Amino acid sequence: MLDGLFKPRSVAVIGASNNPYSIGHIVIKNLAAYGFKGPIFPINPKGGHIRSFKAFKSIQDVPDEIDLVNISVNYKLVPSVLEDCGKKGVKFCIVHTAGFKEVGEEGIRREREMVELAHKYGMRIFGPNSQGIQNADPKVSVYANFTFEPMKPGNVSIICQGGGMGEMLKLHLHKAGLGHRMYCSYGNESDLTMPEILDYYGQDEGTVAIMMQIESFKNPAAFLEVAERITPHKPILAIKAGRTREGSVAVSSHTGTLVDQAKMATAMFEKAGVLEFHDTEQMVKAGVAFSMQPLPRGKRIGIVTNTGGPGIQAVDEAIDAGLTLASWSPDGKQKLKESLYAEASLGNPVDVVATANADHYYAAVDTLLKEDGVDMVLVFFVTAPFTDTDAIATRIKEATDQSDKPVVIVVETYSELYALIDKLRASDLPVYEFAEDGARALA
Amino acid sequence: MLDGLFKPRSVAVIGASNNPYSIGHIVIKNLAAYGFKGPIFPINPKGGHIRSFKAFKSIQDVPDEIDLVNISVNYKLVPSVLEDCGKKGVKFCIVHTAGFKEVGEEGIRREREMVELAHKYGMRIFGPNSQGIQNADPKVSVYANFTFEPMKPGNVSIICQGGGMGEMLKLHLHKAGLGHRMYCSYGNESDLTMPEILDYYGQDEGTVAIMMQIESFKNPAAFLEVAERITPHKPILAIKAGRTREGSVAVSSHTGTLVDQAKMATAMFEKAGVLEFHDTEQMVKAGVAFSMQPLPRGKRIGIVTNTGGPGIQAVDEAIDAGLTLASWSPDGKQKLKESLYAEASLGNPVDVVATANADHYYAAVDTLLKEDGVDMVLVFFVTAPFTDTDAIATRIKEATDQSDKPVVIVVETYSELYALIDKLRASDLPVYEFAEDGARALA
Repeated sequence: MLDGLFKPRSVAVIGASNNPYSIGHIVIKNLAAYGFKGPIFPINPKGGHIRSFKAFKSIQDVPDEIDLVNISVNYKLVPSVLEDCGKKGVKFCIVHTAGFKEVGEEGIRREREMVELAHKYGMRIFGPNSQGIQNADPKVSVYANFTFEPMKPGNVSIICQGGGMGEMLKLHLHKAGLGHRMYCSYGNESDLTMPEILDYYGQDEGTVAIMMQIESFKNPAAFLEVAERITPHKPILAIKAGRTREGSVAVSSHTGTLVDQAKMATAMFEKAGVLEFHDTEQMVKAGVAFSMQPLPRGKRIGIVTNTGGPGIQAVDEAIDAGLTLASWSPDGKQKLKESLYAEASLGNPVDVVATANADHYYAAVDTLLKEDGVDMVLVFFVTAPFTDTDAIATRIKEATDQSDKPVVIVVETYSELYALIDKLRASDLPVYEFAEDGARALA
Repeated sequence: MLDGLFKPRSVAVIGASNNPYSIGHIVIKNLAAYGFKGPIFPINPKGGHIRSFKAFKSIQDVPDEIDLVNISVNYKLVPSVLEDCGKKGVKFCIVHTAGFKEVGEEGIRREREMVELAHKYGMRIFGPNSQGIQNADPKVSVYANFTFEPMKPGNVSIICQGGGMGEMLKLHLHKAGLGHRMYCSYGNESDLTMPEILDYYGQDEGTVAIMMQIESFKNPAAFLEVAERITPHKPILAIKAGRTREGSVAVSSHTGTLVDQAKMATAMFEKAGVLEFHDTEQMVKAGVAFSMQPLPRGKRIGIVTNTGGPGIQAVDEAIDAGLTLASWSPDGKQKLKESLYAEASLGNPVDVVATANADHYYAAVDTLLKEDGVDMVLVFFVTAPFTDTDAIATRIKEATDQSDKPVVIVVETYSELYALIDKLRASDLPVYEFAEDGARALA
């Protein structure tokens, strides 16, 4: 169980200083700023205080039990602080410090010795050369990570080898109005492994989907075994970095791994039901849909739009991505005919036309969602100057509330009406800006 | 010559009323709001005034010559107002009115008769069933269109069959900090054809790139002939709507055309050197690069980053999109070695590491741009909390100013630092938010 890492009851920060640019300082600042629910203990041989926290000269002086320690001292000092941690009975050490496997022969030895030392005391090492972990669950609120991004609770958990990619995923979930749940960037993976963390995420009830980026598999078989167990009940979205030969060379200079694992990764993803992405933005956009909507029961998409062109883009993209166009029952068609303007198109897409009002939108979305032959609905909505856009948004939401089928909204609007997007998102509807994105997300 | 349409010296609006939701009213509002450089004449049988403009009962009562007329009266009234326009010596009529070809047999006849009537007087019809035109060139500033988006001068001209798609392109250029030059959504294409407009854009010195969306080709041969003449000196970016069978059915219900032209379109695009896109967002992102940067002389990309993962994503995407990774001369390598931190990676990507300062960025970008073996540079930049991000942006700009090779920037940052993105954009550097987008734009 990794509760000591992701739900620590107390955190010590070794290498904490009053230099505001030091990793230890930033970790303490982040833990405090996001309201960590346990006590924070800075450790600094000089004592004194770091920010408003009393600093202890050694972790052994701390009166409380310590679950988790963040270590950012120079690699030469790591063994001695680890000894201290071991004697104190610490459970998990996040090692931010670099200078291990990634620097070659000597670093590899150093890394092995560090893990052996930790195991002697029953401790687990997360890292080294890692950015840290977060758990945005308000019950614990752990920001044990030295980066700069706001942390907000959500239901997607993230596991990335590289910190830059991890932060990218969080940033763009945030831009889409969402937060995340657990997060980690695992760096050198010397002890605690990616499959162990994945397994933990898989068992976490607050995690509805998992996003990951992998530079190299340390233990492919373990990943496959864990992923296969998770995907039947929880989607895993993944990017394998280095899918081209040139990319795999770039991976090797980033993490020191030389094997070309791209083809193996794709095969494993397919076998385990992991959704593979090449594009970071596409993975985020899919993650947004998984976070906010139920899974569809089939592949039949219904589309409602008030302008022709984007509706066609949605159709083309939906078909390319493997969906099929739904058709309506005679009753459904009759209902559409009775509720919409005479100029409306009653096929799929339903074009309610640009002058459509809130009741037209309600009728179209509601009718499609109630059709047995429709598994999911994409609603496109350009904010025409002659309609009450706010009322349309409200009525769309009313129609979707009565259904357990997934719905995504695509809004074409300009900055003065961006509040509309926020309103729809606040009501748990995923909102995209391009018709193609909506179709891909549903697919 | 289409100067009477895109650079009219005067505009009359037939169907102007004081109903603020009427097309005529909105066109007058837009023309005035964006400072049209000629006089505006509302035409309304009741006379009076529309907004602050005196209305004339008939266009024949207007004392000035009229180049362009916007018509939005009911289709039944169109022939009689066209007669008036003809007698007045009008050059171009934008017909917003619907109820023509798109409604079937009778509408087709109606449309043919309208064009015959216009030709009798030497007038040209734009539309019908069209949204209008814009020319953001400050010398004329024509917003003869009934939509809602801000208009801002730029150097990309847009020609779309569907208004919803056209507005989408403009919106997202605007979101990327850019404007556009000429714009039109041509609707039924009854008289004035898409290839004629394309030809006009091709000859316009203020247009550096053309973006288009086509639902159906009325005259494929004419398009091919014009496009082939333009692409050697000006890029054309295009989406053909309805590239799947289902999509082409959706096109037919939008515009009444039944032919499946997707394969023919792709063949023509290839022959004419038109860049085909399937995804609206991707087309906009490429358009941004064409608008702001020179064309590369070859395919060799150099990448500078301060974080590993996104650098690898850029490599994978660049290779997939047909670029090759540049390598550095011994001198270049030496310069990098002397200028960067010891932990920096000196290959491609150059990883200046997260703590890199403004001088490191300057040295890396400057060195790569001066290498003969580098045709273009992608700069990735995560705003690490321990660096002066503003200084980094300034120095990157200094390095790029001395080069005529294309550069794109990818910035990973959070909302408090969005001003940085604006700053880079204001200095004519295209800024993206994902490494893959930067690589694709350069490709």
